[in-house]
Amino acid sequence: MAPSALQQNGHSGEQDLDLTSSAVEHRLAENEPSNGTTTGAASNGVSQPNVHELDASKLTYTFTENPREIPALGVTEIDGNTICTDHMITAKWSAKNGWAAPELKPFGPLSLMPTASVLHYATECFEGLKAYRGYDGKLRVFRPERNCERMLQSSVRISLPSFAPKELEKLIIALLSVDGPKWLPRDRPGNFVYIRPTMIGTQSALGVQAPAEAMLYIIVSFMKVMDKPAGGMKLHTSPDDMVRAWVGGFGYAKVGANYGPSLLATQEARARGFHQILWLYGKNGECTEAGASNFFVVWKTREGKKQLVTAPLDDRLILAGVTRSSVLALAKERLADEVEVVERKYTIDEVMEASAEGRLIESFASGTAFFVCPVSLIHHRGRDIQIPAGKSGEGAPITLHIKNWLVDIKYGREDHPWGLVVPEEH
Amino acid sequence: MAPSALQQNGHSGEQDLDLTSSAVEHRLAENEPSNGTTTGAASNGVSQPNVHELDASKLTYTFTENPREIPALGVTEIDGNTICTDHMITAKWSAKNGWAAPELKPFGPLSLMPTASVLHYATECFEGLKAYRGYDGKLRVFRPERNCERMLQSSVRISLPSFAPKELEKLIIALLSVDGPKWLPRDRPGNFVYIRPTMIGTQSALGVQAPAEAMLYIIVSFMKVMDKPAGGMKLHTSPDDMVRAWVGGFGYAKVGANYGPSLLATQEARARGFHQILWLYGKNGECTEAGASNFFVVWKTREGKKQLVTAPLDDRLILAGVTRSSVLALAKERLADEVEVVERKYTIDEVMEASAEGRLIESFASGTAFFVCPVSLIHHRGRDIQIPAGKSGEGAPITLHIKNWLVDIKYGREDHPWGLVVPEEH
Repeated sequence: MAPSALQQNGHSGEQDLDLTSSAVEHRLAENEPSNGTTTGAASNGVSQPNVHELDASKLTYTFTENPREIPALGVTEIDGNTICTDHMITAKWSAKNGWAAPELKPFGPLSLMPTASVLHYATECFEGLKAYRGYDGKLRVFRPERNCERMLQSSVRISLPSFAPKELEKLIIALLSVDGPKWLPRDRPGNFVYIRPTMIGTQSALGVQAPAEAMLYIIVSFMKVMDKPAGGMKLHTSPDDMVRAWVGGFGYAKVGANYGPSLLATQEARARGFHQILWLYGKNGECTEAGASNFFVVWKTREGKKQLVTAPLDDRLILAGVTRSSVLALAKERLADEVEVVERKYTIDEVMEASAEGRLIESFASGTAFFVCPVSLIHHRGRDIQIPAGKSGEGAPITLHIKNWLVDIKYGREDHPWGLVVPEEH
Repeated sequence: MAPSALQQNGHSGEQDLDLTSSAVEHRLAENEPSNGTTTGAASNGVSQPNVHELDASKLTYTFTENPREIPALGVTEIDGNTICTDHMITAKWSAKNGWAAPELKPFGPLSLMPTASVLHYATECFEGLKAYRGYDGKLRVFRPERNCERMLQSSVRISLPSFAPKELEKLIIALLSVDGPKWLPRDRPGNFVYIRPTMIGTQSALGVQAPAEAMLYIIVSFMKVMDKPAGGMKLHTSPDDMVRAWVGGFGYAKVGANYGPSLLATQEARARGFHQILWLYGKNGECTEAGASNFFVVWKTREGKKQLVTAPLDDRLILAGVTRSSVLALAKERLADEVEVVERKYTIDEVMEASAEGRLIESFASGTAFFVCPVSLIHHRGRDIQIPAGKSGEGAPITLHIKNWLVDIKYGREDHPWGLVVPEEH
């Protein structure tokens, strides 16, 4: 074959480099207000007149005829099954017609064909947020617009449909308005329920392709309080043979594919007496996430400056946590005199050095499920790094300051724009 | 804090390195005959007397009362939905009781709670194999034991239960015995159906944890013939912003998490006129897989030696394809005088150089879905690499030799141990 077998194609090589991110940007642009309209026509990026948008105002209501009793305080599951509230919201999507009217209906099983895309190709993503019964009697959700925006990012990344995040937020509020008063009653202040918006590819087709049918659903469940493990959270660093996420991957998206593959290492770490994996990245062992939570350390630099340090978002390895963002904002606003807030890459060796030199002050994991959870120990390659975590692991001072400020906002002790009050029907 | 904060733990750091692979080996060992018995007690690795194994001899039969018509030749879907046969097999598993008796029953929807593990955490894996109606009238499956062994590897990797692969094989044969005669009739020799064993985590619990309940199911479907795209298969190399699999990941396992995240780049490549992505790995751009198939090139070395080259399995980046293994074995056995068979890492630059120097002779993708599919073009960073692929892209000589040998084995023109004959009831 002659050298001419290698031909310069019509376009430059530049646009070959970012196939995925340009596809993501293209799809996200469909939801920009500048388009004049949002669109459900996710698969081809072209707004079509007969393709319907996700529209919360079209929500239909079918109330349960078999209301269940709410569980006793602290009970979150029955025989290992998560307890959910009476209702859920579902909304079906197809590439051809866009979004059907969302339906509020009794919580119950989904019917999926055995060929459904989600069961084979992990075309699925989700969000997690909590609703809090305040000490003032009001029901609040915490910065839900953040979760709804991230849900769109995740959905597009995993080839599921796009939608206007505000519509998802309205649906979440609508479901809480119906189930909140009963399941998170006013006589149980200081408690929460966990909301799980989920999107799955439902097309009944075995080919490896973006599903042409999907379903969004929202459920409300009970969840254990996990922010106070006795003695603090104990982490085991990730093994060499398990990488959670990687540059060029999808670590920033809340897609199922980030979770299932990590369960095995987590299970093994638990069998060895640890709570979660501290995920390291790259040959230098950069600290990224703790379990499925963001991870923070507080240390003193060698110059004696106190810093709150967490991994940056720019290489998209880690989830842009809503709690993470809130922790950083509060620390900058309220601890500016005491602590410098730093988002940068840092390695497990730096953490070990700080510990060995007596400069490691605190550590915690942050996320919706684990809230702000003190870390008391990191096990790395045969060594244990002990970290001060207060009495019985309840948290050292900076951790507790941040945690208490967030508690006050969530439960209405502090009036704050992050706490969105849910209107309740009765 | 004193340096003593860094404590040597009871065990050495060595065992921290291979948390995942040691957990996998541990779980796989449960199914070794040396244990005396296989076990369904996957989650703790201890064989328990009351935990039942997967046992094909317990299969129950419930036949459909609404048999459907078989599709016309070449029809594989209706309105984008894959056509399946009349029946499926399901088997439920729980950590507590192990495997329930498998059931053959009418093909139909599955009922899953919205909280089911598979819908959130991608706790899912699958296999794909075909059954062929031979020109001698017999029904054959191709090396099914390979798929069943790989299914076990995948299941364990994604924290789903273990089982004896032979039992899965028996269930596949049992389903084909029932649906084969009708859906792949003797008057349609030279055709195939596609079998999809699938395992999903069904526990209705939202925590990020290995599911304590799961379901195995087997369905039989129709699938397009994909091994003869007009003009040959055209590949677009993977962008910098999308890595399919990575060392320390799970590229070798047939888990959903390998597929969903790749759909976006594939969709974008298709929009640009290509069939599949050629997945490159690492900063040197090693060629790994083409779409979800293995990838081969035939080139001449600068010394003039003809080689059939494909990526190695040892770093577990790629799927150990059954077709791949068969291609390599046939080439070694039947083309030894003509072609050297080489499993090694090779880069897109080497392929471009071979092309530019007139040494690139052939290329093909191999897999169950795409069989042996000639590749006629690779687009990389603005350049097109043209590859001889025979008249109309039907395949160059070596590709066609291998393909025809495999066709002969699958459709019974050659009696060969790889073609397992399925007993048929009528």
